[in-house]
Amino acid sequence: MRLARFGAVGEERPAVLLDDATLLDVSTFVDDYDRAFFARGGLERLQGVLDTHGADLPRVAVDSVRIGAPIARPGKVLCIGLNYADHAAESGMPIPEEPILFMKGTDTVVGPFDDIYIPRGSEKTDWEVELGVVIGAPARYLADRDAARGVIAGYCVSHDVSERAYQLERGGQWDKGKSCERFNPLGPWLVTADEIADPQDLGMELDVNGEPAQRGSTKTMIFDVLELVRYLSQFLVLEPGDLVNTGTPPGVGMGHNPPRYLRAGDEVTLGITGLGRQRQRFVPAP
Amino acid sequence: MRLARFGAVGEERPAVLLDDATLLDVSTFVDDYDRAFFARGGLERLQGVLDTHGADLPRVAVDSVRIGAPIARPGKVLCIGLNYADHAAESGMPIPEEPILFMKGTDTVVGPFDDIYIPRGSEKTDWEVELGVVIGAPARYLADRDAARGVIAGYCVSHDVSERAYQLERGGQWDKGKSCERFNPLGPWLVTADEIADPQDLGMELDVNGEPAQRGSTKTMIFDVLELVRYLSQFLVLEPGDLVNTGTPPGVGMGHNPPRYLRAGDEVTLGITGLGRQRQRFVPAP
Repeated sequence: MRLARFGAVGEERPAVLLDDATLLDVSTFVDDYDRAFFARGGLERLQGVLDTHGADLPRVAVDSVRIGAPIARPGKVLCIGLNYADHAAESGMPIPEEPILFMKGTDTVVGPFDDIYIPRGSEKTDWEVELGVVIGAPARYLADRDAARGVIAGYCVSHDVSERAYQLERGGQWDKGKSCERFNPLGPWLVTADEIADPQDLGMELDVNGEPAQRGSTKTMIFDVLELVRYLSQFLVLEPGDLVNTGTPPGVGMGHNPPRYLRAGDEVTLGITGLGRQRQRFVPAP
Repeated sequence: MRLARFGAVGEERPAVLLDDATLLDVSTFVDDYDRAFFARGGLERLQGVLDTHGADLPRVAVDSVRIGAPIARPGKVLCIGLNYADHAAESGMPIPEEPILFMKGTDTVVGPFDDIYIPRGSEKTDWEVELGVVIGAPARYLADRDAARGVIAGYCVSHDVSERAYQLERGGQWDKGKSCERFNPLGPWLVTADEIADPQDLGMELDVNGEPAQRGSTKTMIFDVLELVRYLSQFLVLEPGDLVNTGTPPGVGMGHNPPRYLRAGDEVTLGITGLGRQRQRFVPAP
């Protein structure tokens, strides 16, 4: 299934994307794609709803509505740093010996086509296309990769927008450059895990104003999705509905020579094989 | 007012602590002390409830019930690192030129008397008494200290439990050692800002098994509460109900010579002038 949420900000309705590019509104059966939904077997129930009531539910054309993030505000947004060897190299950082964890504020999650704010005074707002992993079941101290597989609800495109000066030049920890307002466009869809044959073989791309910036593949992750989920569960509790951003391939603005950062009016488009595409206009923070 | 929440985990009811050590159950008027409560002028309405209905509301003795965290799960837990000059020294770190920001998972927030889990395999679980600041109104790009004052709902004791090996020896960013299960006991009360004459003149103490470990005062913060709130709002949006942990004074286990970390069976008690005291037993993570 491809899960989506549509409607005005804060009033999104849960839906399922159909092959004919319409959204099936499932809001009479599902409150939201949130922690409770995933924790209570919502994905299985949703399949049952489609089988039984799918023909009767209201539909809207996907291009006639605002698309929100495909999940409700997560409980945590966990991010892996420098998880592609060639991105580590372009950042001038050594290849990590174990996954680097940082966090974004969960209020940064917005829709995949929403305008993104360049923070006031920012000079180094940068892009990062990432494979987003959504957790589907509570997880702590997972024993192995198979156990990790069992707690993944699905995958989505995640844009880990970053302010490099705030992240690297303003005293210590990366989080400061990662949680600015609207800094995590997500979606357009959450594709359930059963529909992704191999999450480690997905092409990734990001363009700025139509010019190629990032080109990569989840093949070149240093720590793959199953290892990341297993690893994180040794340090914290993964909750249903949590989002894990798994790192970005080469080609971020900071890695260009000379560096190239986003300015008001720039348009960024990004996508991952089978997960859909995002497009954002960057505008000054009001 | 002193706000509290009591009852079983996940079923806490909002209450107000009275001078006779009873809790006034306000759950018929207040859903919870959450984002919506603070955002919609809940503190003012609560004062009205007390004035009008206080005599009629149910009461329970404070020592007859479990006390939860005094606020619902926050949207963000923002933490300031090395914000006391002598703690920075004991950590072998330079005094920061501007506030260091890191984050904890918001699911780490638990009650002030709950057992705390020593993570499996942990050798360096450590303590940190901190002044917690709860945000009472949305805040972005605050202009000055007066504006910061206007968005503070109140203060509480916050225990920023930390695993030093995970934080400092496992690859990169501090968050990895800060978000283990149950790592943020909070409370027992949220004391509203109007009742704290000077948040920069509060004594802080933490004992381990009855032995003094941390002794300090909010007087020696490098960046004070108003500056922290103003500063943070330049980098992210502060939401009602968010928690800011403002740093710890000297005396953490890592700073002892030799270092002294928590073991199963240890009991930690901590308190801040006017904000009450916490007590936790440390037990192995199940």
